[in-house]
Amino acid sequence: MALIPETLGLYTDYYELTMTYGFFKKNRTHETAVFDYFFRTNPFQGGFTVFAGLRDLLELLDQFRFSDADLGYLRAQGFSDDFLHWLSQFRFRGNIYSVEEGEIVFPQEPVLRVEGNLLEAQLLESALLNVLNFQSLVATKAFRIRQVVGDRLFSEFGLRRAQGLGAMMASRAACIGGADSTSNVLAACKYGIPPSGTQAHAWIQSFDSELEAFRAYAEVHGSSTILLVDTYDTLRSGVPNAIRVAREMETHGERLRGIRLDSGDLAYLSKKARKMLDDAGLEYVSIVASNQLNEHVIKSLLTDQLAPIDAFGVGTELASAKPDAALDGVYKLSAINGTPRMKISENIEKVTLPGIKSLIRFYDADGFFFRDGIFLEEESLAGADTIFHPVYPEKNTTVAGLRCEHLLKPVFAEGKVLIANKTPKELFGYLKERAARLPAEHQRFIRPHLYKVGISRRLLELRNALMSKRY
Amino acid sequence: MALIPETLGLYTDYYELTMTYGFFKKNRTHETAVFDYFFRTNPFQGGFTVFAGLRDLLELLDQFRFSDADLGYLRAQGFSDDFLHWLSQFRFRGNIYSVEEGEIVFPQEPVLRVEGNLLEAQLLESALLNVLNFQSLVATKAFRIRQVVGDRLFSEFGLRRAQGLGAMMASRAACIGGADSTSNVLAACKYGIPPSGTQAHAWIQSFDSELEAFRAYAEVHGSSTILLVDTYDTLRSGVPNAIRVAREMETHGERLRGIRLDSGDLAYLSKKARKMLDDAGLEYVSIVASNQLNEHVIKSLLTDQLAPIDAFGVGTELASAKPDAALDGVYKLSAINGTPRMKISENIEKVTLPGIKSLIRFYDADGFFFRDGIFLEEESLAGADTIFHPVYPEKNTTVAGLRCEHLLKPVFAEGKVLIANKTPKELFGYLKERAARLPAEHQRFIRPHLYKVGISRRLLELRNALMSKRY
Repeated sequence: MALIPETLGLYTDYYELTMTYGFFKKNRTHETAVFDYFFRTNPFQGGFTVFAGLRDLLELLDQFRFSDADLGYLRAQGFSDDFLHWLSQFRFRGNIYSVEEGEIVFPQEPVLRVEGNLLEAQLLESALLNVLNFQSLVATKAFRIRQVVGDRLFSEFGLRRAQGLGAMMASRAACIGGADSTSNVLAACKYGIPPSGTQAHAWIQSFDSELEAFRAYAEVHGSSTILLVDTYDTLRSGVPNAIRVAREMETHGERLRGIRLDSGDLAYLSKKARKMLDDAGLEYVSIVASNQLNEHVIKSLLTDQLAPIDAFGVGTELASAKPDAALDGVYKLSAINGTPRMKISENIEKVTLPGIKSLIRFYDADGFFFRDGIFLEEESLAGADTIFHPVYPEKNTTVAGLRCEHLLKPVFAEGKVLIANKTPKELFGYLKERAARLPAEHQRFIRPHLYKVGISRRLLELRNALMSKRY
Repeated sequence: MALIPETLGLYTDYYELTMTYGFFKKNRTHETAVFDYFFRTNPFQGGFTVFAGLRDLLELLDQFRFSDADLGYLRAQGFSDDFLHWLSQFRFRGNIYSVEEGEIVFPQEPVLRVEGNLLEAQLLESALLNVLNFQSLVATKAFRIRQVVGDRLFSEFGLRRAQGLGAMMASRAACIGGADSTSNVLAACKYGIPPSGTQAHAWIQSFDSELEAFRAYAEVHGSSTILLVDTYDTLRSGVPNAIRVAREMETHGERLRGIRLDSGDLAYLSKKARKMLDDAGLEYVSIVASNQLNEHVIKSLLTDQLAPIDAFGVGTELASAKPDAALDGVYKLSAINGTPRMKISENIEKVTLPGIKSLIRFYDADGFFFRDGIFLEEESLAGADTIFHPVYPEKNTTVAGLRCEHLLKPVFAEGKVLIANKTPKELFGYLKERAARLPAEHQRFIRPHLYKVGISRRLLELRNALMSKRY
């Protein structure tokens, strides 16, 4: 049996099906609903989140249907034939509005909205959350790493420690967030990402000597060769052997591209290795570092220790998005048949925002992001003068006269994807532009300044009215 | 394009291909190699690891080949036609020896061994690590949760926060580790796991009142109904409405199965709700809890606070295996053409064990696991008297005369899977048996006692001889 079948209607939580069945049995198949996707906390104790996963979600919609085998399985679970017939015809035919992939977004704001048939929109929940939560998480992690590596090369190497087939979306999202390449060949092929890799210790060990192993690799791979120098002893064996091979390569017009350090103290070893390479006249040979790296370790290596490292391979912590491992995005009903709805909850922070909403970004006079505001879609922005803290409305800010833009745009309608298919690298280009407009104080790692998201007066009034309603 | 294609030869790190290409170009296509899979640290600061993922790995072998499209992609990366022809014929035809799925295993020991053609065994590395690392991680997490929930029901609910398609293997591994069911319908269908689910807030919100929503759900789902009671106000609205519906259900011979708490203080709310239910004569209605649960929170709820919770839905922290998110398993060359090989490394802990090895478990007189020993396969166990700490051999233990068993068994040979296909639940049955033999001090969460794994005298001597060899 294939790891993942061609139809993905079953890629959902069971309760989506029991609820949809309930709607069907209660003759609600012609009602409409609006759901918002949003998250509650920026990952990694950071000040922002990079939105990613949209394209995969839209492509998945085409597979989000039920095969005969799927329906047979559901029949065995006790669902009735009339419902199974309805499922056999099921396709998501609603509308989706979303911020762009690579956009910088913040907690509580509706970054994606699904409108359509109640049953269709409900069924989509789990798959949508699965794709958007994970890719946004990894893209954010990757961008944090990109922030500290600057213009150096940075490759995603996490396949072996990734969470099963989650490796695929991890590689894509890592490149949206700024990785230059991935080791994961299937992801490279599927998503149009440059593949990259050096060699494993097994290559070295499979030869009778390290020198022989280095020579053989260079002979086959020429100037793209990067030699792993820590199999036996980095400074006494690996680097001297690499230097010897680099000189041999020079005699027939080739250049060793780099050496890779994968254990030991990377600051110490990179400095020693750099000096040995430079003393041998091999200034052009790069030093690549890997082994349990993350944004904090790389920042310390480069900023505090001035380690002469030219490129980084980041695996486990990027592909599995340690230490958070998950983004807490949710998909909440905000209207049904045109009527605003909300969840009240025990915690005021978990109260949802009712109604069909627009998401507006306001700019300051210098062109930086200033505030995001959530409005009712029917509101005219011409009247937008003040936005309010959603929990403590006595905190509010004037936005009158500020340049602003709508962040939510139609991306899917009438069964069709409305946006161009961009490569992860193109999406990273967009992210870079956007990040340049996010004030630095929201980008730092340690206690970043909170970017404020407010709600309009009319949305506040609507929420308060629904809060006091009795259910 | 399908999320995951039918052939998975490209599901590998790029360096596996550049190395294999190198072996091919150096005319090494007829050499043999042996690789060990092992990990270095138990996850979650625990005292053991549950091995999982074997069956998925063995099934993946059938898809681990290259389609014409895959070869076309590799041609565009610059691989030569003779190599592509070799890849077009590629199938893994080697032998795999492994401990059973659900076995309790420990750091440093070879829990799986691959023997075969050098190129084939090398190509397998990344996919093998990807599957075994993640499933062993999640199975371990799930078993920790099973340890604290006892005989209560425990369901895996993590699809929405899982790492993309990693959700599939997460659900399988969670059930190997002890989850009773999963919310992930596709995983339930593929792996033969009971699906489970209740309802979302959207169901409640989609009706004009909570009571109406509860009634409608109970009408459709009868005695399997579990009502989510925290949409508006748990104790003032949700539980009273659930009680009302439960009584209505009784009038036509049905019984409300349970209520679900998904926010607020679960200890406080479960006690209040239990009392309200009991006072209404509804002792049979279960209380299900969810919301950011993990083994520590559940232990506190049940042991310290005596919360009357009957069933748990565990999502994010289980499916994404927080906070570790990855197991550090590696795949290391231990012999080539019959000659033992090892990696020396900068760190003594990272030195690998050379040669073809067997893994032996010794039992104490009470039938508990006492020590694991790593021997050279050619050694007779009759002579096994002492095993040594791999780094500090002055620490050693006598194992003379102890009952022992071989843990590594052939699971794949001549292109065929040699073991039965067991359900996750059956594998959990095996795990339970094994865990009953692991002394409690290795199972506790706080500073578990270290289970000792030793190496034989002959393996120690071989390692020392190779350590002092110059490369």
